[in-house]
This record gives sequence, structure tokens and C-alpha cells, in this order.
Amino acid sequence: MMMRVRQDGDEPLKVVLLGSGTVGTQVARLILEHGDDFAARIGRPLELIGIAVRDLSRQRPGLPAGLFTDDPQGLIDRGEADIVIELIGGIDPARQLILSAIEHGASVVTANKALLAAHGEEIFDAAELAGVDVYYEAAVAGAIPIIRPLRESLVGDSIRHVMGIVNGTTNYILDKMTTEQTDYEAALVQAQDLGYAEADPTADVEGYDAAAKAALLASLAFHTRVNGDEVHTEGITRIVQDDIRAARDVGCVVKLVAIAKQLDDDQISVRVHPTLIPLGHPLAAVGGAYNAIFVEADAAGRLMFLGPGAGGAPTASAVTGDLVTVARNRARGVAGPNQTIYNELRVADMGAVQTRYFLRLRVVDEPGVLATIAAILAHHKISVQTVLQTPADSSGVRDGASAELSLMTHMATESDLLACLSELKANPKVRSEVRFLRVEGM
Amino acid sequence: MMMRVRQDGDEPLKVVLLGSGTVGTQVARLILEHGDDFAARIGRPLELIGIAVRDLSRQRPGLPAGLFTDDPQGLIDRGEADIVIELIGGIDPARQLILSAIEHGASVVTANKALLAAHGEEIFDAAELAGVDVYYEAAVAGAIPIIRPLRESLVGDSIRHVMGIVNGTTNYILDKMTTEQTDYEAALVQAQDLGYAEADPTADVEGYDAAAKAALLASLAFHTRVNGDEVHTEGITRIVQDDIRAARDVGCVVKLVAIAKQLDDDQISVRVHPTLIPLGHPLAAVGGAYNAIFVEADAAGRLMFLGPGAGGAPTASAVTGDLVTVARNRARGVAGPNQTIYNELRVADMGAVQTRYFLRLRVVDEPGVLATIAAILAHHKISVQTVLQTPADSSGVRDGASAELSLMTHMATESDLLACLSELKANPKVRSEVRFLRVEGM
Repeated sequence: MMMRVRQDGDEPLKVVLLGSGTVGTQVARLILEHGDDFAARIGRPLELIGIAVRDLSRQRPGLPAGLFTDDPQGLIDRGEADIVIELIGGIDPARQLILSAIEHGASVVTANKALLAAHGEEIFDAAELAGVDVYYEAAVAGAIPIIRPLRESLVGDSIRHVMGIVNGTTNYILDKMTTEQTDYEAALVQAQDLGYAEADPTADVEGYDAAAKAALLASLAFHTRVNGDEVHTEGITRIVQDDIRAARDVGCVVKLVAIAKQLDDDQISVRVHPTLIPLGHPLAAVGGAYNAIFVEADAAGRLMFLGPGAGGAPTASAVTGDLVTVARNRARGVAGPNQTIYNELRVADMGAVQTRYFLRLRVVDEPGVLATIAAILAHHKISVQTVLQTPADSSGVRDGASAELSLMTHMATESDLLACLSELKANPKVRSEVRFLRVEGM
Repeated sequence: MMMRVRQDGDEPLKVVLLGSGTVGTQVARLILEHGDDFAARIGRPLELIGIAVRDLSRQRPGLPAGLFTDDPQGLIDRGEADIVIELIGGIDPARQLILSAIEHGASVVTANKALLAAHGEEIFDAAELAGVDVYYEAAVAGAIPIIRPLRESLVGDSIRHVMGIVNGTTNYILDKMTTEQTDYEAALVQAQDLGYAEADPTADVEGYDAAAKAALLASLAFHTRVNGDEVHTEGITRIVQDDIRAARDVGCVVKLVAIAKQLDDDQISVRVHPTLIPLGHPLAAVGGAYNAIFVEADAAGRLMFLGPGAGGAPTASAVTGDLVTVARNRARGVAGPNQTIYNELRVADMGAVQTRYFLRLRVVDEPGVLATIAAILAHHKISVQTVLQTPADSSGVRDGASAELSLMTHMATESDLLACLSELKANPKVRSEVRFLRVEGM
């Protein structure tokens, strides 16, 4: 037996836009210029009733001046909006504005990964209570549809592993370092010149942006609440040209990846760090500012989603896709699937994580030293897959006294690895720090 | 103002399954074994109330014998089902069973591309009228979420071009011919031995299966009703090892692709044919029985979706994803977005299609012959990008009298090309048929 509630007629759905940067301006133009298309796709017209901006004096050609206000809270509190699109970013005042919008009964479309990763529970609970939607396709991987496939298409399947390049800035930098042997600093400056990196690149290069996205992906994939601060996060600022070269010598590239992986019936691992990926893996070929997300599920097998990860137009595409869906739900008097959080898997400590490791160190160049190193690894239950010994330092200058060792291990736990590194460090045959990078996809 | 209708409680949603082959059996097992997960994701439990099969005597271990019947129409006409999953395939009796299910008020999940490409209008109209869902993610590209991204994620954007490898059988055969220099017939036999190709491979190798999928993709991308019989369709049965080799010589691979492309404000081109794809294009690297779909939209840019294109488990994943969504809609008393067909773009005649062409022909091996050929092309407004002249026939045996010409053209219309081919054929300097393949992605 079905019951349907229809609110017929041409009464428009009222939309409020918070923020009018690159994405906001594009979204506003799409709503104003493609009104007929939206109406056909939704079944009701949309009406943009207000745009909150920081600076009222800035010129915004093509957008009616009467729509603008610098009082976002006042705009929300008018209580007229059916849908509020939040594109301000950051935690405050975005959090309070979204909660107010929900209290007033509006559905919300947002691209704000940092907010959802930190305060998702509060926001989704409020939306559930109010019977409204919170959609956020634009928060992860720009225009690539990944939230909806995880939330809806794969909802009948069991996801085991999500691994993605979800930050275009760092992918651009690592790509430059790989293809043009650029240093990190030079590649960062190029990324800034091209507008791929902010003047303050911290959120990108330290991995915080990717960590927020990892938390959102893990929450959906494993039906478990994961917050951004539970994600083990390492950025790319310590990656040097030598790491890239050494990775290439063993047939890998270095990528900053976000990983969410089921460890056992009770635990998942959620982490962001520079990672060696074998050249044959589909993620290895993802260049420039592109994003890609690899998903492995019990029945579906291995899927990959690829596309532009950022930029005004792709993000606007994701926002307007959500806008149409939320508006359709609104026109039918329902809300879409909320976050289906019904599991309580634990985010494992890094010590419990199992992966392969790529180690590099300089040792005294004398017979028997490899046996010494191998014995230390074996003592910590770490078995070695391949060893590469180079009797010269990384700059090619032979000092006659030391050799470089590169080792690829089999699977080992992080706690065993760290204990092993301490012992290596204390050994007199070891002449350098021991650099290590994790390896996935082999 | 929102109004919501909730049907609370634990009353199960009743599911009927039509067909119990590889996919059906897997879907039935998932429903029976993961009941708690489904209930958590849907908000209501599912109850499998009947499975229609052709042969009642076949053993189906793990599935309760009481569920089976060989009378699908009788099962539907009991009128108890909330959701009918159709996995019989083919036009009849699937069409009548689905229409009966809709009449009885059930929502439908189907993987039946042939039926939807031929009778989509009738079925979607009936569903619209009855206020029920017809979901069909499994009909195109197995587990790869593509229907939902087109129907929902990209619904705020304007799609210009969809190009996909949507038939795993032909991709496997062409891949074998490319990587192992196998002949078509030998590759087909291998595909049959591995279960990738049917004993009667016609639907796959003649492109009919891909054409049905092209029609579904085009309908969604352009909001225009496209039937399977409007799709220009060429299969791979005429592709010989020589075509593959010649393609490689110009840096391309041969793939069977489904193309849906906007030509202008009034027309789209929808076609399936063997196509030269440059090695650098993301579709070129899609090997084996994998599927991949490339989508280009105004705002989103270029997206690609990759994954296993067929097989029991991936198809079951797509079916159960739809099942959960349809069940959620049902539990909320609503239907999801139907096909939003509001445009009436015309499917252009092949003559109007513009693409590049790769031509191969043998000519008399004498000075001036290239000038003769070039003049004929120019006369038909076809300009040549590159020419490769090989003074030997394809088997490497020089006959001293003829040379092979390979030409890559710039963009030309199909009608100009066909006129040009007639004139080439009539010219005494031309010593062979003129083979041509279309080129995309350059």
C-alpha cells in the first residue's frame, strides 16, 4: 500500500545561498539562467530569494543587486527558505547558520567537509529530527559522484576498502615532483601560481583537507560515525625528491591517499599519508589536479571514480545536482536517506594497522651489514620482500664508507615497524635516519 | 512547509524475485542472509515471498523450497508484492510481468536493458501513473554506478558527451586480439570457454547489447526518449587482426564503444561501433571484461567510471543497491525520480555525424598516386592529418605493384566520407576495398 503526498502547482521552492565566491556565483548564475531546466527536472520552479556575502560593495555582474545581504543569520531567520546552500566554508559561522536553517525547516546543501567531519553528528541528528535533508556531494572530490554511489548505489553491498586521491593540490605537487624532478618547494610555488594551492597551503599540504574527506568516506562506507580528528594524518611537507626517485626505482609513485579499510569485524583503519602506489595500479596514473576514488566491495568488486577534484565549475555541478535532488524531495514532501549510521566499528590505533613498508637508510659499507639489518627486522617479525643496495649516497657522491639500502617489506604492523626503527636507529652500523613510507595496492 | 507520511513499525516489505539464475540466486541469498543489515539501511525489514523459476526440479541449496514457483504471472497476481525484482531478461514475458507488477502497485527493480530500450516509454509511463519506482542500475555496466550519477548527481549540469565500453564480452575479445595478436575467431572461442561469451554470441558481438545500453544512457543524459532501434549499431565481427595492427601503428587501440553526443541544440548522435581510441585516452587502458564510462558535462568536466561490467556478484550488487533505495522510498510512501524526459532532441542520421576517420587501402605503387588520392579526399572536403605509406601488403609479402596507404583524417561528416569512398572505389589506382574505422577521443 502506497500513500503519496503531492504539493502540486507552480509555487516556487525558495532557495537561499550563503557565500558568493567562485562556486557560489556559478551556482547563482545556473539557478537564474537555467530556470526552465531546473523546473522540468524538479517538477517545481526554484526561486533564489537571497545571497549572503561578506563584502556588499564587490561587483557581481549578472546577479540582481537586490538579492544581496551581508547578514546571513538575518536571511535565515526570515524563515522563508525551503533550501539553504552553504558555501562559506569553515566551522564558524557555518555551523550555526546550518543549524538555524534546519531549525527553520529548510533542507541544506553544503560543500563543507571540515564542518561535517567535525560536527557531522550534531548536524545530521538535527536534520533527522526536523525531517529535512543535508546533502554534501561537493564536499568530497568535486564533481565526481562518490557520496551518492556510496550512500545509495552500493548500499546493498559490503564495502571493504576505499582508497582515494582526494586532494588535487597535493596530487599536483607530487605529480610535478615525479614527472619534472622538481623540489617540493618549487612545485608548491607553481601550484600557488596556477591557483591550485592557497597562499596558506597548510590545510592541503598537511593532509587536513584529505583527512576530513577520509572521515566522511569512512562514515558512509562502514555506517559508522568517524570524526576528522580520529583520522591518522600525515601531509607531504617532508617528502623529498630522493623519496620520489627511490620509489621509482622499485616501480612505484608517491601519492597522498586517504584510506578507509575494514581490518576485522570490529575495527576499521582510517588514515591519510604519503603512500607508495605501484605503477600498474589505476590510482598511479591519476595526474595533475585530478581526483580518483577506488572502492572495493564484496559483490561489486573493484570500482574506480575519476574526475576533476576541485575548481568552481565542477564543485558547482555537484552542488546543483544535490540542489535538484533536495528540491525534488521537498516537492514530494519527504527527505532522502540520511547518514545510515548503525554500526559502531572502532577506528583502530595506527599501531594495529597492517601494511607494507618501504624503508631507506644508509649503512656502513662493509661485508655482513645486510645480515645485521635483516636480523633486526626479523627480530621484529618483519620479513623483507626485496632489497636494493646502492654503494653511493643519494647525490651520487661516493664517500667510500656508506651504502644506501632500500627495503620493501611484506605486511607488518605499524607497532612492530616502530619498534624495529628504534633498534635500527641505535645500531652503530646505521649511519642515517631511517626513512619509511607505507605501501598500498601491491 | 513540509508534510511527511511515515508508515512506522516493523511490518516487512514483501519482495518477489522473477528469475533465479546466477544473479537471482545471489540476490536471494543476500536478502535471506543479510536481513538485519537491510532492515537497518531501509528502516523496515524485507521479506522474500516468492521466487519464480523456469525449472522447479533444479536444486538451489540454501534457498527454502517453499518459495519457488514456476508460475510468475500467478505470483504477481497474488498482488502482495511491494517490490518485484525482474531478472528473467528478454522482452517476453518480462514486459507483461513488469506491467502487471506495476498495475498491482509494486515497484520494480530490473537489469533488463533490452526491454527498457525497446519498451521504456510504456513501462516508465505506467510507473509514473501508478506512483511506483522502476530502477535499473544493473542494466548498464554491472556494478558501476552510472544510472544514478546520470539521473541524480549530474542532474544540475548539462551533459554533452557520454562514451563507454559497456560490453565486457567484446572488450575481452578486442583486448585479446590487441595484446596477443589473436584472430577474432580464436578470441571468441576463448571468451566462450571462460564464460564471458554466450554459446550464441550474437547480441554481444553484433553490438545489440551495447546499443540497448547506449539508448538508456542517451535518454538519461539528454532527457530525451531514445529507443534501441534508433541507435546506429555495428559490431566487431568484421574486425581483423590487420585493423588492430594498423591502429597500433598510429598509436591507437580498437574498442567497441557506445557514444551519445550532443551535436547541436536540436540533435544528438547515438551510436555503437568499433572505434579507434588513442593510447593516452583513459578508455584505451580498460582491459579484459571491465567496463568504463566517460562522461563530459559543462560544469563537471570529464569524469570516468570504471569497474567490472558483468558477472553474477557485480550485477547482484547493483540490484540490491536499487532494492534498498526502492524499499526506502516505499517505506516513506514516495517514488524516486522517474526518467525526466522533457526534451525532444532528434537522433541524427549517421550522415550528419562528424568524426575523424582512419582509412586503409591499397593503391598502385607509382609516383603521383598519393596526390590522386589526396585530391579525391579534398574534393569531398575531407582533410588529411597524417598519411602512412607501406610498400608491402599486410602479410609482409611485397608484390612490387601495390602499396598500403593509412590515412587519419580531420573531422568530416559521414555523408562526405561515404561519397568519397564511392569515388575512391571507382578509381583505377585503388587496388582494394577501402576499410574505414571511426576515431574518437583525439
